[in-house]
Amino acid sequence: MFRDPRSVAVVGASDRPEKWGHWLARGALTGRHRRRVHLVNARGGEVLSRPCHRDLDALPEVPELVAFAVPAAALADGVARATGLGVPGLLAITAGVPDEAGLAATVAAGPSTRLLGPNCLGVYDAAAELCLAWGSFTPGGLAVVSQSGQLGLEIAGAAASARIGVSRFVSVGSQLDVTAAEVLDDLADHAATRVVALYLESFGDGERLLGTLDRLRRAGKHVLVLTVGASGAARRTALSHTGSMTSGVDVVDAACRAVGAVRVDTPAQLADTAQLLMRSRPVRGPRVAIVADSGGQAAVAADTAARLGLDVTPFPPALRHHLARRLPSQSAVTNPVDLAGAGEQDLTTYASTVTAAAAAGVADAVVLSGYFGSYGRDIPAQQPAESAAARELGAVAAEHRVPVVVHSMAEDTDTIGELRDAGVPTYRDVEGALRAVATAGRLAEAPLRRAPRTEPAGVDVTAGAGGRGYGAARELLRAAGVAFPRAVVLAPGVTDPRPLVAGLTAPFVLKADWLEHKTEQQGVVLGLRTADELAAAHADMVERLGQHRFVVEEMDPRPGVVELLVAARRDPSFGPVVVVGAGGVRAELDPDLALELAPCTAATARAMLRRLRVAPLLDGWRGAPPLDVTALAEVIVTVSRLLAARPELAEIELNPVRVAATGALAVDALIVPSSPRTG
Amino acid sequence: MFRDPRSVAVVGASDRPEKWGHWLARGALTGRHRRRVHLVNARGGEVLSRPCHRDLDALPEVPELVAFAVPAAALADGVARATGLGVPGLLAITAGVPDEAGLAATVAAGPSTRLLGPNCLGVYDAAAELCLAWGSFTPGGLAVVSQSGQLGLEIAGAAASARIGVSRFVSVGSQLDVTAAEVLDDLADHAATRVVALYLESFGDGERLLGTLDRLRRAGKHVLVLTVGASGAARRTALSHTGSMTSGVDVVDAACRAVGAVRVDTPAQLADTAQLLMRSRPVRGPRVAIVADSGGQAAVAADTAARLGLDVTPFPPALRHHLARRLPSQSAVTNPVDLAGAGEQDLTTYASTVTAAAAAGVADAVVLSGYFGSYGRDIPAQQPAESAAARELGAVAAEHRVPVVVHSMAEDTDTIGELRDAGVPTYRDVEGALRAVATAGRLAEAPLRRAPRTEPAGVDVTAGAGGRGYGAARELLRAAGVAFPRAVVLAPGVTDPRPLVAGLTAPFVLKADWLEHKTEQQGVVLGLRTADELAAAHADMVERLGQHRFVVEEMDPRPGVVELLVAARRDPSFGPVVVVGAGGVRAELDPDLALELAPCTAATARAMLRRLRVAPLLDGWRGAPPLDVTALAEVIVTVSRLLAARPELAEIELNPVRVAATGALAVDALIVPSSPRTG
Repeated sequence: MFRDPRSVAVVGASDRPEKWGHWLARGALTGRHRRRVHLVNARGGEVLSRPCHRDLDALPEVPELVAFAVPAAALADGVARATGLGVPGLLAITAGVPDEAGLAATVAAGPSTRLLGPNCLGVYDAAAELCLAWGSFTPGGLAVVSQSGQLGLEIAGAAASARIGVSRFVSVGSQLDVTAAEVLDDLADHAATRVVALYLESFGDGERLLGTLDRLRRAGKHVLVLTVGASGAARRTALSHTGSMTSGVDVVDAACRAVGAVRVDTPAQLADTAQLLMRSRPVRGPRVAIVADSGGQAAVAADTAARLGLDVTPFPPALRHHLARRLPSQSAVTNPVDLAGAGEQDLTTYASTVTAAAAAGVADAVVLSGYFGSYGRDIPAQQPAESAAARELGAVAAEHRVPVVVHSMAEDTDTIGELRDAGVPTYRDVEGALRAVATAGRLAEAPLRRAPRTEPAGVDVTAGAGGRGYGAARELLRAAGVAFPRAVVLAPGVTDPRPLVAGLTAPFVLKADWLEHKTEQQGVVLGLRTADELAAAHADMVERLGQHRFVVEEMDPRPGVVELLVAARRDPSFGPVVVVGAGGVRAELDPDLALELAPCTAATARAMLRRLRVAPLLDGWRGAPPLDVTALAEVIVTVSRLLAARPELAEIELNPVRVAATGALAVDALIVPSSPRTG
Repeated sequence: MFRDPRSVAVVGASDRPEKWGHWLARGALTGRHRRRVHLVNARGGEVLSRPCHRDLDALPEVPELVAFAVPAAALADGVARATGLGVPGLLAITAGVPDEAGLAATVAAGPSTRLLGPNCLGVYDAAAELCLAWGSFTPGGLAVVSQSGQLGLEIAGAAASARIGVSRFVSVGSQLDVTAAEVLDDLADHAATRVVALYLESFGDGERLLGTLDRLRRAGKHVLVLTVGASGAARRTALSHTGSMTSGVDVVDAACRAVGAVRVDTPAQLADTAQLLMRSRPVRGPRVAIVADSGGQAAVAADTAARLGLDVTPFPPALRHHLARRLPSQSAVTNPVDLAGAGEQDLTTYASTVTAAAAAGVADAVVLSGYFGSYGRDIPAQQPAESAAARELGAVAAEHRVPVVVHSMAEDTDTIGELRDAGVPTYRDVEGALRAVATAGRLAEAPLRRAPRTEPAGVDVTAGAGGRGYGAARELLRAAGVAFPRAVVLAPGVTDPRPLVAGLTAPFVLKADWLEHKTEQQGVVLGLRTADELAAAHADMVERLGQHRFVVEEMDPRPGVVELLVAARRDPSFGPVVVVGAGGVRAELDPDLALELAPCTAATARAMLRRLRVAPLLDGWRGAPPLDVTALAEVIVTVSRLLAARPELAEIELNPVRVAATGALAVDALIVPSSPRTG
């Protein structure tokens, strides 16, 4: 009923253009040739030259959709009447509703009534000619689903600036009844929608949302996600705005990777990327070929591409020679290409150069940067040649299945329009062009789906249940398959550990079992070379820290070891996540982490390791042998599976895990149980 | 003569709009009411309905400025004739000149002739109504000086999009005679110029350029620098484009800091920043107050600000209470402010909220983000109220001396124009707005000028001259004031080091004096606990590496030490620079460095340390005592002075310098002498 109702009513319809009731009525009437439109205002009379009903009860029919633009105090009554009448769809713009729970209960009582809002900015559907929102929309292929109505309108406006239109706009507001996930579900078979822009501050039932996003992907709709909470200031606002905790953007990024969506930072970035996805073929990777009119523009584009994580790899010799034969001697042919005025001499140079780059199979996108797009404006006699070149650029992109993207110094010239019509996205700012390529390219990565939820093999579910200390954590993790050094637990009351450690090989490490921050509280002693040294250290620790449980462990003697942390925790929306990162002090100051949804596969674990800045250390740094990435990935998988399978655990942290050429050994572990409410 | 000549001639004038000679002639004629304009074409006849001379010799006078748009082969002859006639100013658009050296010699032979170009895109001066360039310019306050003509035009175009105009445009081309520094010098007293956009790929005589930029700053002109070379791809292009090595962008950033200029990444960023500098008061720091129409826009702005390094600090309680009393209950008042529809209810809310934030003295800029700017467009009756609010925002900025910056969903409405006229820069993209604030804010930092060049106190200029090894470097640096552990040098041929190290305290470190990469070649042994262990290690090293010079050093036993690297080297343009950074393997993978021009002051050295990501370690990490930053800064100063004073040294590297609560001790040092050509 929110897509193409056969009849709508606008309650609070008004002639005054500063009123929401005016815009809803005006918008509703634009669709009156295909549906019945009823205007309701308590004062009756006429609105927009049409007779107005005083009340919903007075309508000649029960409308399929009723939109409310009424004061907060009047909304509950209106919703109750509509629900009583059996109206299937309600849309509430009204903000500041005093009793949202009461409103929700009213709607829930109506067996067939659904409510969108309140505190939303309406609905638009281009194909259905349904407009119950502020402002005007240009029809197109972008669906906008937004928890913030204003931000949704800003996205639609940015899309209009990029000359792409909107297929559907839904401001979900407070999601008192209809949720963003339901609205998204409805887009999977929405023919006009090719790209979905989603703004959410809180993600609700993350598992449900992931299922929806996955369906959208399978239906061939790209999803671009805008969210907030990267900064403390934004988290403060979101908390105040929607009353909910945000998921970390690192978790949202992981969720996007799991379903082949991608996160953007601003409405402009979203519109830039949407333009590329809408006009052009998919970008299949990070390799970009740059063709520019001048050396300066070539170099600025190359620096910008590198900053955005794109690869501007030098062309192979055959392509360089091909270009060198055709371009003037002062040009550069390595990537970036500097045409050095060759385009100005002969307008066919643009397409021939781009063709060469596209045909060589060395680039996932070709970016043309400079003056092209301005010729016809500056020299009218050259417009036919420039138009032909524009069409040719589109043909090159289609034939070689490589997006061709134009950054032009010109704005809104005839040629710019022709480029867009030919399937060549155009940008006024080289950074916008390259960021769109980089962002769209990330959609080509295979989704890093969660692994099935199963208990890790061989895990003894009773182990570790008894205590919260290191010994218990060790046992639980060992049972799940994580390797630790050999150890002996010293029960409270042990006075001489020497006979108990006869089976272990020195040097030893002594740890206070119950302390979370052992180093800071001097609850760990390394390098105890003999059982006597161990006994002395134990006696000292008992005296300082009390007679509790201690763990004696063999010290890991392996050289060339790299220390990482492996951890897992729960996100309020997306559930279990797993993290791997560099260990040590600098990692605390300047984290080097990779996070994915849990449980993860071994392939995902290896992909996480490759993303770390310390990754080269794992490959064999400066002639050292490569480290045992397989064993390390297995630890990541196991920790991710364990947390996912055990709701009673809130958090697992192994820090550090010592990885050598053979094996990965955890030498500290912490398990935090779930609090009774969440556990 | 390139600013306001009394007469100009265009050689190669043409009626064909695809020819440069057409644009130069057309542009020159726009100034014919204030100067004599002569057109020259070998075919004679008429161009642009004016009689054309066949030759420079045929002109009725010697023009002050002659612009050449002739084929490359014809340029040398034309320049020779003009020089022979004693023309003071020549402008050569022509690219691909076969013999640039010959051309330079011709010009140099003319006692009073100066040449701009070749391979340039001309000159424009708004006040002088001088236009010898392609395209058209809007008059305004931005001077554009560019080594790449196309990029200069792109900057001018981006400025036009931001509705700011150009005071002067100079494409310096090959700088065969007139250099960018000379053109910049000429801007210091150019009244119309308020902001200078400078694009350079190579910086030539850096010291000269710094002097010029410093004069521009003192003349109240802000300088925004665009350069390339951050990526390998851009360096390849610049090398091919201008035949010169680029300075690293880290060096350019240091040069900018030394003269109060700032570097930007793209023409669009440059234009965005120029707009702010042109319309508004200076931004005095990184603190930004955000006022937005909705929670979503507030949070996106806050995240974007944080990503750009701006501070979105929570407002103090008094300001929060003030705002809470005036805004609806669902608004957020902490920073960012979410008006939650209050602006829509009452348009005066915008200025009153911005006033409160500006008056509280807690922000260096106030950014308003959202719908403002669209009211009059959507609701014509509200235009007067919106216009009044726009003027009021300008008045707030002026009264409280805090820039007010608007990000608006609207584009080019009447209100947007009124905001700009009122001194409120406006942006279509929130990232553009905040990046302009961040970039302009960096201009407020006090210039980190070079220290005077003096020899470090107490340095023995003869020391270290004899050898290239560690011992020699140590002695030179010690003489300059850098602390090292006590040491003894073992000359080649020593068979028993034990008697020689009697004055040192164990444990010892043994180092092969001549090896640059001691660890990789096993040329260093740590922790030798006795003289006997030392002797054994020495014998072993002699056997493995040969009978050369060795150094025995006391091992630094201090706990809680942080290791940094301190180095100095020479940039081809800007000369000596000094670097400090985190030490260790991770620093190689993921550098954490600060670089400034050398010699530097102690204050600059301390500022460098504060910029490092490892800076918190120096302050006393996790309850450890603060480290001896004074001693460390002194090492940085000394290394910077030493390299600056000694042209025979190409590079100094101390890695690591071990910094403890007291003292900073260098434990390895490398000095690379200058090669004979540069030394």
